[in-house]
Amino acid sequence: MRIKIDGKYEERRALWYEKGKVRMIDQRILPHQVKVLDLTTVEQMAEAIKDMTVRGAPAIGAAAAYGMLLAKQQGADIAGSAKLLKSTRPTAHDLFFAVDHMVKALEEGREPVAAAEGYVESIVEKCRLIGVHGEPLIKQDARVMTHCNAGALATVDHGTALAPMRAAWNKGKGFFVYVSETRPRLQGMKLTAFELLNEGIPHAIIPDGASGHFLRLGVDVVIVGADRIAANGDFANKIGTYEKAVLAKELGVPFYTAAPISTFDFSIESGEDIPIERRAETEVTMIDDVRIAPEGCQALNPSFDVTPHKYLAGIITEIGILKPEDIRKVKEAKIS
Amino acid sequence: MRIKIDGKYEERRALWYEKGKVRMIDQRILPHQVKVLDLTTVEQMAEAIKDMTVRGAPAIGAAAAYGMLLAKQQGADIAGSAKLLKSTRPTAHDLFFAVDHMVKALEEGREPVAAAEGYVESIVEKCRLIGVHGEPLIKQDARVMTHCNAGALATVDHGTALAPMRAAWNKGKGFFVYVSETRPRLQGMKLTAFELLNEGIPHAIIPDGASGHFLRLGVDVVIVGADRIAANGDFANKIGTYEKAVLAKELGVPFYTAAPISTFDFSIESGEDIPIERRAETEVTMIDDVRIAPEGCQALNPSFDVTPHKYLAGIITEIGILKPEDIRKVKEAKIS
Repeated sequence: MRIKIDGKYEERRALWYEKGKVRMIDQRILPHQVKVLDLTTVEQMAEAIKDMTVRGAPAIGAAAAYGMLLAKQQGADIAGSAKLLKSTRPTAHDLFFAVDHMVKALEEGREPVAAAEGYVESIVEKCRLIGVHGEPLIKQDARVMTHCNAGALATVDHGTALAPMRAAWNKGKGFFVYVSETRPRLQGMKLTAFELLNEGIPHAIIPDGASGHFLRLGVDVVIVGADRIAANGDFANKIGTYEKAVLAKELGVPFYTAAPISTFDFSIESGEDIPIERRAETEVTMIDDVRIAPEGCQALNPSFDVTPHKYLAGIITEIGILKPEDIRKVKEAKIS
Repeated sequence: MRIKIDGKYEERRALWYEKGKVRMIDQRILPHQVKVLDLTTVEQMAEAIKDMTVRGAPAIGAAAAYGMLLAKQQGADIAGSAKLLKSTRPTAHDLFFAVDHMVKALEEGREPVAAAEGYVESIVEKCRLIGVHGEPLIKQDARVMTHCNAGALATVDHGTALAPMRAAWNKGKGFFVYVSETRPRLQGMKLTAFELLNEGIPHAIIPDGASGHFLRLGVDVVIVGADRIAANGDFANKIGTYEKAVLAKELGVPFYTAAPISTFDFSIESGEDIPIERRAETEVTMIDDVRIAPEGCQALNPSFDVTPHKYLAGIITEIGILKPEDIRKVKEAKIS
């Protein structure tokens, strides 16, 4: 991604390995400050994952792989380091997967830098391919809508939903992006708008409740990310996604999710079986430690919603744009 | 409305006349503080309207009527006072109407207190009747959804969308209200939740983007206010209304707007002709003078959206629940 660091634009990832250190954009202070931190120990990496210096499942996976590389470099205990990293964010699937991948590679005697970089490159390459396959959906002068942050900051580089936009922009297409702010945590406003601003892609932040209004005025394509996709194509994503899908259908606007194949959860038949995390109500009732809701009022804060596959025009993956009914073929291809 | 003042619950209006003074709940410091101000001059009233100590078109109308009463009491110039009050919020229809009403009444030699109280009572009575007609829509154990604030604070008492809820609650029905927070200005969170809390009505604040999620989980009726209703039943209301209407239709949830007949604008054929005010983008990008959006990003802030009448189960008015096609009959009844 293109990002302004110390007053000049550079082509950078959310984190990268350089001369024995891991360098990482501090996401806690975005979008108001861009600062690159240097990490040299697995303990520092565990802390960075825990305190959300790095966030987004794929980026956390990359951080964990690099964390194991740092452990090896500093001569730390591998099993202990693996346990330490796994304890940072106990529900992150990519984190566990990356740590196990590195433990195995180190046990097999693979070169540590190559093992970690191989893991990270595979993430980045999938996102790049999502961009390649999704790019034709964005026509010259298109009005695009997205939600939350499915960008480079969360995925090391390119992003998922933002990958087709980056690819179209880099091809020289002009278009405009509506970014819904994504309450309560405002990832659309704070991260997606920030990424688009850095790329130079024209965009505007809108309140979540204005999405329908702008869809009705005219949007050509909606592209969002996905946290989990069931075998029938129903998918969970940030709260507010389902609404846009229904509105897009009503108004004849094609609605896509962009996600790597690893997001498919074949163990889940339909969206009915996807559990919805409820987060703290203070994310809604407070902003930066200041209470905005009336004292004594309760809030509900579901983190995700489920969008039934009937609203989905397609799933933009690293192997192409799939229809919901193609998911089972992917499963069969994997099994055979 | 029931409201806690100085630690004890009282039955109060947003503003009222008492022993030569106008008393008014200071809406600038709600919901965190409840303070009653005493106003004795038309100049104080003009200031209170201008600085939004009182807000909501019907409540501003009441404030203007009381302002003219204060002018008369203090022996101020009537024409000058009328001009002063009209200059406070230049686009408020109710404000102009109330001032003209009082000027005429005073010219005709009507008793000033009776003239002002008559105007205010007619507003309150319409809202009370909206409550009476809308109350049967809320069944025992119903799950209700509303948006923004169409409550007593904006209408002197009862409210429009909140009037049926107050009526049902006062009849002893138990039910639950989802209040969407209503970004950017958070009137749902700050005012509607506050009014429901004071009444004791069970409710929860939800992010705007969670409306679809909760409608899908199960809502029995949606009731919102209206700023302007066109002759065909299309209506303008706070941004975020249209989305809920489409989602409600998709999910088979009846969707109502509540508004007095005076909200009908027969000069406007359909929603296409309702102009949409765009407010300052800083309402989206800043909270309490602190910038939350990335420096350099633009935001769009349409104040209202238009909901086509096809999504509307009915319009709850002081003369009963109307279907969109009944509006023309009301017009004919007025003309004949």
